Amino acid sequence: MDTNLRYTLVLRVYGDEKIFGPGIAELLEHVEELHSLRKATAAMGMAYSKAWSIVKNAERALGFPLLVSTVGGKGGGSATLTERGKRFLSAYRRFESIVHGYADEIFEELFGEDAE
Amino acid sequence: MDTNLRYTLVLRVYGDEKIFGPGIAELLEHVEELHSLRKATAAMGMAYSKAWSIVKNAERALGFPLLVSTVGGKGGGSATLTERGKRFLSAYRRFESIVHGYADEIFEELFGEDAE
Repeated sequence: MDTNLRYTLVLRVYGDEKIFGPGIAELLEHVEELHSLRKATAAMGMAYSKAWSIVKNAERALGFPLLVSTVGGKGGGSATLTERGKRFLSAYRRFESIVHGYADEIFEELFGEDAE
Repeated sequence: MDTNLRYTLVLRVYGDEKIFGPGIAELLEHVEELHSLRKATAAMGMAYSKAWSIVKNAERALGFPLLVSTVGGKGGGSATLTERGKRFLSAYRRFESIVHGYADEIFEELFGEDAE
């Protein structure tokens, strides 16, 4: 084979519709770091309105809030993750990490000599 | 939680660029069944030109042909998978199936009572 092979794995969580995936996970991590949804979207180059609706849809589907916000003020107030939001994000990252670890082994077995 | 959770998992194989994923896998399975790239694309509602370039890009990146075609004639000739094409498709489906089986367990563990 002319090329080294690698793979990507994307996990998304659904209820009736999509709830959670790599995008919202990254967004919430930025919120945790920057304490602001607006700064988090800026860091990702994502439209604020899009981020807002992704979070609201996820919250509605999950039945609990992911973010607590304080509105207003210069810079648009601050935002942090709720405890349940933190737990959900953490479960998603753990899910990714465990499945990825296993997939690494299987990829090596199946695509062995061509895998990077 | 207000909703039952499930997940989706997408695996893609890359060289320098994307080589293989759910789309080309499904396409090759249709070719195997219908003995025609054109019929396979029709079955999937995919543009023939798009399918052709997906297959050609994958073949170039892999360094071996996935399809053998007989050109011309009414209906545009026939196509079948090469032996290496069959093996690669089969390895990809096996990769998906093994990782999915494991992810099912981990999802149940992590999202337990909310998982369908």
